[in-house]
Amino acid sequence: MATTASTAGKLVKSIKALIKAPVKKPAAAKADRATPLLDARKAGKEATPAMLQKVAKETMFLHFTRHSPYYTAKGEIPIITKASGHHFWDQHGKKYFDGISSLFSVNAGHGRARLAEAAAKQMKELDYFPLWSHAHKPGIELSERLLSYAPKNLTRVFFTTGGGEANETAWKLAKQYFKLQGKPMKHKVLTRAVAYHGTSHGALSLTGIPSMKKAFEPLVPSTFRVPNTNWYRAQDDFETEEEFALWAANRVEEMIVFEDPDTVAAFIFEPIQNSGGCFTAPKIYFDRVREICDKYDVLIVADETIDGFGRTGSMYASNFYGFEPDMMVLAKGMTSAYAPIGALLVAEKLFEPFKNGTTLFPHGYTYGGHPVSAAVALENLDIFDEEDLVGNVVRNQDAFKASLDSLRDLPIVGDVRGKGYFWAIELVKDKTTKETFNDAESEKLLRGILSQKMFEEGLYCRSDDRGDPVVQLAPPLTIGPDQFDEITQILRGALEHAWKAM
Amino acid sequence: MATTASTAGKLVKSIKALIKAPVKKPAAAKADRATPLLDARKAGKEATPAMLQKVAKETMFLHFTRHSPYYTAKGEIPIITKASGHHFWDQHGKKYFDGISSLFSVNAGHGRARLAEAAAKQMKELDYFPLWSHAHKPGIELSERLLSYAPKNLTRVFFTTGGGEANETAWKLAKQYFKLQGKPMKHKVLTRAVAYHGTSHGALSLTGIPSMKKAFEPLVPSTFRVPNTNWYRAQDDFETEEEFALWAANRVEEMIVFEDPDTVAAFIFEPIQNSGGCFTAPKIYFDRVREICDKYDVLIVADETIDGFGRTGSMYASNFYGFEPDMMVLAKGMTSAYAPIGALLVAEKLFEPFKNGTTLFPHGYTYGGHPVSAAVALENLDIFDEEDLVGNVVRNQDAFKASLDSLRDLPIVGDVRGKGYFWAIELVKDKTTKETFNDAESEKLLRGILSQKMFEEGLYCRSDDRGDPVVQLAPPLTIGPDQFDEITQILRGALEHAWKAM
Repeated sequence: MATTASTAGKLVKSIKALIKAPVKKPAAAKADRATPLLDARKAGKEATPAMLQKVAKETMFLHFTRHSPYYTAKGEIPIITKASGHHFWDQHGKKYFDGISSLFSVNAGHGRARLAEAAAKQMKELDYFPLWSHAHKPGIELSERLLSYAPKNLTRVFFTTGGGEANETAWKLAKQYFKLQGKPMKHKVLTRAVAYHGTSHGALSLTGIPSMKKAFEPLVPSTFRVPNTNWYRAQDDFETEEEFALWAANRVEEMIVFEDPDTVAAFIFEPIQNSGGCFTAPKIYFDRVREICDKYDVLIVADETIDGFGRTGSMYASNFYGFEPDMMVLAKGMTSAYAPIGALLVAEKLFEPFKNGTTLFPHGYTYGGHPVSAAVALENLDIFDEEDLVGNVVRNQDAFKASLDSLRDLPIVGDVRGKGYFWAIELVKDKTTKETFNDAESEKLLRGILSQKMFEEGLYCRSDDRGDPVVQLAPPLTIGPDQFDEITQILRGALEHAWKAM
Repeated sequence: MATTASTAGKLVKSIKALIKAPVKKPAAAKADRATPLLDARKAGKEATPAMLQKVAKETMFLHFTRHSPYYTAKGEIPIITKASGHHFWDQHGKKYFDGISSLFSVNAGHGRARLAEAAAKQMKELDYFPLWSHAHKPGIELSERLLSYAPKNLTRVFFTTGGGEANETAWKLAKQYFKLQGKPMKHKVLTRAVAYHGTSHGALSLTGIPSMKKAFEPLVPSTFRVPNTNWYRAQDDFETEEEFALWAANRVEEMIVFEDPDTVAAFIFEPIQNSGGCFTAPKIYFDRVREICDKYDVLIVADETIDGFGRTGSMYASNFYGFEPDMMVLAKGMTSAYAPIGALLVAEKLFEPFKNGTTLFPHGYTYGGHPVSAAVALENLDIFDEEDLVGNVVRNQDAFKASLDSLRDLPIVGDVRGKGYFWAIELVKDKTTKETFNDAESEKLLRGILSQKMFEEGLYCRSDDRGDPVVQLAPPLTIGPDQFDEITQILRGALEHAWKAM
């Protein structure tokens, strides 16, 4: 109380002093700075690469980026200028094979003029309207379309602008749903180790990568990690992958019991987990997880942000496993990334309480289900149908696997795993003992050698050590055997080079 | 330990039982459901309004929506079909005056064909590339452009897909920045009562509207509310608005002291607060807040999601007040909502630590700074320049105010406040005592009578009671005196009708 009273005393004095203080005049509305790109634009001139590089270095704060190399004497930010099919080009005209669909996203490949035309058409008709108490045609059509591919228990669509927002939505919906069911304490969420679910505070809390979280703690209470299905790194006492998968599934039950079922709302996971490198699981994992979650009234959310839209060889990965999650998160491949959109598909039981009286889910996003993005998604899905992109994956996935498996003779290749057009190559120091690289070695291997080498060789894919070091591949669904060999050949050279240089 | 041991025992049994369980065969990949809209699309036929309505009712989970009225005998979801200038049309061909720029967003008005062409051109050139360690031309150009209008201390741009994500980014950056400064405990954020900053868990934690949060607690620790600048509802013991504003600013200092400056990272607020109804503040508020935050090393974030891009009569509201926030959140008006994008502008000191060594801000969004959205933003800002939209607001804002002020003779109109093309009319039971409506009355007034009446009369604006009941207006920046009178006339009729019906 003494502090408060003394603070209050000071504040009164401070108010009195300031009330007499002269109010400064408004400053100029605009800072006086050079605008070379704007000047060029207004003059109808093309900005040069040097101008773009200078402004980029001076003004941009990039995502997940180590900026220091750009500020060295020779350093420069790669500026991507155009893209077509499974290629893109940088500011020097150098061509790259887009081995990761830009960000697990451009599933139908780059440069599809019909998507541009669909966007322009919609924009001229209805440029924008929010889904706040209203609907629009592309949104309604896309709702029906997304559900048409989905497990039959999913019947409703809540649109967002991306996968992270859909994960946020899933958690919020689970919390409110259980309150409406008279189970107000059910709010905790289980997620899997090393899984990535997004970067906003809620989605980040769900994420199982501690290094992405520690600078931002405390995050949202209360999320808990269970093991993922990393069979390559499973403990030795499992004879089969099924046995290991059951163990991993049963850890979900264990954690529910540890926390008390009355407090647990949901289990959120990717059917095939991306971070850590394409962790698949046998069907028994999904069956057992469903059994456990039903037993304790815990909702299951399948995060198919990356898995969805053909990536793993079926429209949604859940379908392949005959798995019926209570909610499903979709994004990236929905528009092949040509326009931002995401969605949460939900089971009818989760919508039912919101049909009554004044009950409302106080949640939404200005740009969720943007009509232009929805129109682009519809046209993109037409391409999927007309070109049978999912069929192309199914027909070619064994050949892709075989091509990558041919790298197993390299001493650095510990594992090749994945499904569909979604693969990870785990890099090891010793393939007999499966000994991995330590942090300093992994840093040197991935950032010092491998990324640079693949970049030079014109292959864009991801070297990642959020889990153990892996090279990840997720090319557009349009490619075939010739391109698999092209990828594998570049990888072989780069991996041999890296092994020697370590 | 007993519980754990017994749980473990049960799990072992359960594993053994299940290992022998037969694995079910994968189910069919696709549910067997009717797809009338897809069928029409494939057949090249136009979906009828009845078909759209049926699918919308069966599949859509709308944002911030009370769904129950749609499931009555006569109920239907309004489906917006097209838009042009400051109008849009619904499925019955009924025309509406877009009095709130759809969602404080369509600042340049609807139906701008050149924005559609800019989107299509960019999509054909470079449909997508993430800003993860790379840049692209429209992103670089837009960085320069956004900064060209900004207070001179802001020098860097971190792109997002909307305002909520930019608020999430601001908080995360503040937390990591202070850790890098050797002040790891600075993580708390102050925000203002009744303010809206978004719906993802972090942005929601910043939001000052308890009814939007309570179903989702616990949220992110630790955010604290300070008073907003609602002068109409200020306590009686202030003689001038300046005196009240200083009191409100000093409450920021009080809260910093209450929590301990070593733990407080940032103060986030809208220069003119939307929720509660256009709370402006005199310049002395901004000066004093800056003084306080400098004293305690607390960062200031101006959330200009709604205020920005001409809405309040200058490009950014901060400019008008000669205010230099450490970070600024921008979104909606940037593209006039034709494509999703948002941005966080930051002062160089906040980027500086990330130029060193391996230091990295582990944050980003797949669709943040999407090249197509950036290209649309640039074209939209060209329209701003060519048509001098901000000048149009400056020239006409007094006339808009005068037109709305003419409603003050109505007994229900307690206050008319705002700036630029951003106004709120506060509704009261008794204008002498300023007595407001209770919850049940407000429900009847806003949702039972007023919204419906304005809808019938073809005026789309917002009746809101997240604070005290207000009608909010934020039309496209293209309109002028004739349209002000049109708005005011409809409002007069609707408010007279509501007063009688209460």
